[in-house]
Amino acid sequence: MGIVRCHISVSVDGYAAGPSQSSEHPLGEGGERLHDWAINLDRWRQAHGKEGGETNASSAVMDEAIAGVGAGIMGRNMFGGGPGAWPEDPSWDGWWGEEPPFHVPVFVLTHHEREPLEMAGGTKFHFMTGGVESAVAKAKDAAGDQDVTVAGGADTINQTLRAGLLDELELHVTPVILGGGERLLDDVGDVRLEVARAVEAPGVTHIKYRVMR
Amino acid sequence: MGIVRCHISVSVDGYAAGPSQSSEHPLGEGGERLHDWAINLDRWRQAHGKEGGETNASSAVMDEAIAGVGAGIMGRNMFGGGPGAWPEDPSWDGWWGEEPPFHVPVFVLTHHEREPLEMAGGTKFHFMTGGVESAVAKAKDAAGDQDVTVAGGADTINQTLRAGLLDELELHVTPVILGGGERLLDDVGDVRLEVARAVEAPGVTHIKYRVMR
Repeated sequence: MGIVRCHISVSVDGYAAGPSQSSEHPLGEGGERLHDWAINLDRWRQAHGKEGGETNASSAVMDEAIAGVGAGIMGRNMFGGGPGAWPEDPSWDGWWGEEPPFHVPVFVLTHHEREPLEMAGGTKFHFMTGGVESAVAKAKDAAGDQDVTVAGGADTINQTLRAGLLDELELHVTPVILGGGERLLDDVGDVRLEVARAVEAPGVTHIKYRVMR
Repeated sequence: MGIVRCHISVSVDGYAAGPSQSSEHPLGEGGERLHDWAINLDRWRQAHGKEGGETNASSAVMDEAIAGVGAGIMGRNMFGGGPGAWPEDPSWDGWWGEEPPFHVPVFVLTHHEREPLEMAGGTKFHFMTGGVESAVAKAKDAAGDQDVTVAGGADTINQTLRAGLLDELELHVTPVILGGGERLLDDVGDVRLEVARAVEAPGVTHIKYRVMR
């Protein structure tokens, strides 16, 4: 049986996205800076179908994050919700293009029913209207012996923490101050963490926590 | 000329103290867990006049934090403010006992005038009613070639950041979720940071940021 884990970039003031999110700025104002550490990495470029890039201490961290993942969970906004997008536009197939970088079944938390959506490259979006517990259960079934990753956004991660469904949380702590936006670890209840390891890397500090029961 | 720097323990959700602070719980509910990583360290015990303790990766970080400090800044609450304390009780000489662990001049931000207070071991509290800029200027004068540390609390640190007075910020990021309390980096304006270094240690991750101009 795999575990349920999450890897997410956060600002030093604890936001996973900046203020004023929109379809133009899905990560909010300034939020794209949360990914500065990643976009020039060899592994990130590979995962997005590009060549080249830098190898540094973050490369192994990213390998670890990607390896052994059998299914994903995400919120509706991360799939492609919001004004002008789904479900306002029912033909809208998300932010992620024809071949999303997941390559596994992805379970989307939503209040809106929709038939499963099969994309190129192995990603299949399943729309789950029964809450976070049943979505995680389905994802675990789909993942089999492999792990489930909770991709985001902050609210979806907070829900899995609050419901006691997350086993491991890795924060990519960036030197960015956003001053507002989507707060990670907000109202998650009495969650106890333990540091599993920390990695110093250019422009980011990777800290992995185990969630204690 | 020295620099102005700050070293502070924070929860993973960004609080420097827990909710419901009082004279019984100066660090708020659960806030004492922010210092779990430090209290058994050799360096911490030395600084508080005790012997023994553990040596680990945090020891060198603490040496660095303590070395070359010529003066301190703190808020009134950290000195010893609040109900039942100063200025309600004018004879109250702070939380720190007869020989506070600072051993340098400490400039206390307050709205209440008070004569300087000389303690054993070299700590002298100066009460500064002219705002954060003049307190930092006085502390720099007193420190000479050495550094000034901003000891806390969160509001005092946020004020120095907002006013562009801080050069370096080290966060001791603990695996604690407080869910409320004193937020560090709250409303600090457009501050740009750069990672100077990160250190993995038992139960804590030390991340040092340079404040960019």
